[in-house]
Amino acid sequence: MEYYSAKIGALIDELARLPGIGTKSAQRMAFHIVGLPETQVKHLADVLVDARKNVKYCKCCCTLTDADICPICDNPKRDHKTIMVVETTRDLAAYEKTGKYDGVYHVLHGAISPMLGIGPNDIRLKELMVRLADVDEVIVATNPSLEGEATAMYISKLIKPSGIKVTRIASGVPVGGDLECIDEVTLLRALEGRTEL
Amino acid sequence: MEYYSAKIGALIDELARLPGIGTKSAQRMAFHIVGLPETQVKHLADVLVDARKNVKYCKCCCTLTDADICPICDNPKRDHKTIMVVETTRDLAAYEKTGKYDGVYHVLHGAISPMLGIGPNDIRLKELMVRLADVDEVIVATNPSLEGEATAMYISKLIKPSGIKVTRIASGVPVGGDLECIDEVTLLRALEGRTEL
Repeated sequence: MEYYSAKIGALIDELARLPGIGTKSAQRMAFHIVGLPETQVKHLADVLVDARKNVKYCKCCCTLTDADICPICDNPKRDHKTIMVVETTRDLAAYEKTGKYDGVYHVLHGAISPMLGIGPNDIRLKELMVRLADVDEVIVATNPSLEGEATAMYISKLIKPSGIKVTRIASGVPVGGDLECIDEVTLLRALEGRTEL
Repeated sequence: MEYYSAKIGALIDELARLPGIGTKSAQRMAFHIVGLPETQVKHLADVLVDARKNVKYCKCCCTLTDADICPICDNPKRDHKTIMVVETTRDLAAYEKTGKYDGVYHVLHGAISPMLGIGPNDIRLKELMVRLADVDEVIVATNPSLEGEATAMYISKLIKPSGIKVTRIASGVPVGGDLECIDEVTLLRALEGRTEL
């Protein structure tokens, strides 16, 4: 990239390594950044380093947080007898945005994937097992992908013997979705999971 | 955003201010960043600050660069008698990627827009005028938008009296484009600009 400054080139390269950012977006961001006031760029850089430095895993549910115990686990108003198991903190955030779930969570930070060499010991399963003493229900909300389903099956086999209820979130046609555009597997899932009106 | 750490929330907010980055992408990037090794995050932060600190405008063509004179203006092999006028350094980069243009550039850093209150004095036009002493052709490659066209007209009126050739890049159907999906104005432009086979 002879035609940019080497510094801008380096910035574009760094930005393009972020997930979901291609060279075009990285370029757009980089030129935006070099046009910002210097203090603002410094602030962005500080926030980056600060976030990384201060983020740790909640000692209870393993979500990313800056306290020892995250605000959800620390909230006595939440139903601590219901644990929703999710793959990532982003998935937790997605369910929190609905505002309708008042149980707690457990973040696995991944899913079992023999293809990628990720086994049960590589995700936060042990941490889940030690939380089950006083739990009524474990809702498995891993993604409806191959890995997510495998993880759900594994968790169910692991927990069911202890008599705790293990449930799986429903798979089906998304609300507002167009049947015509939806893959066959989802359509079949929706059919299998049909409920009486 | 009670459910994240405040530090992650701050990072997401900062990232979402970048162009083309929505909350979802910012969230994805933020969680990726807090999962990176600390040294790598530090490096990204440094590159950001470094790029901003060291970038300046080329004294000749006004492009963003880290030298006084950019590599293109500094290259004796380029045709310095042909100047392509573009709105941004990104546009310059787009033409450089074609590898077929061997003239030099002039970056306006904007386009005339009465709507946004951007007049001829707010873009790098004066810097262009002082470069015209020994120039054969000025190719106006501003965007085919309202502002870009207005800027092109303005530049043409400004330069033509001095006898220098002023040209405008062609507007028309993009290669690989589907006529069906192309707006009427472009279709008419393509028709007007037709060439004999």
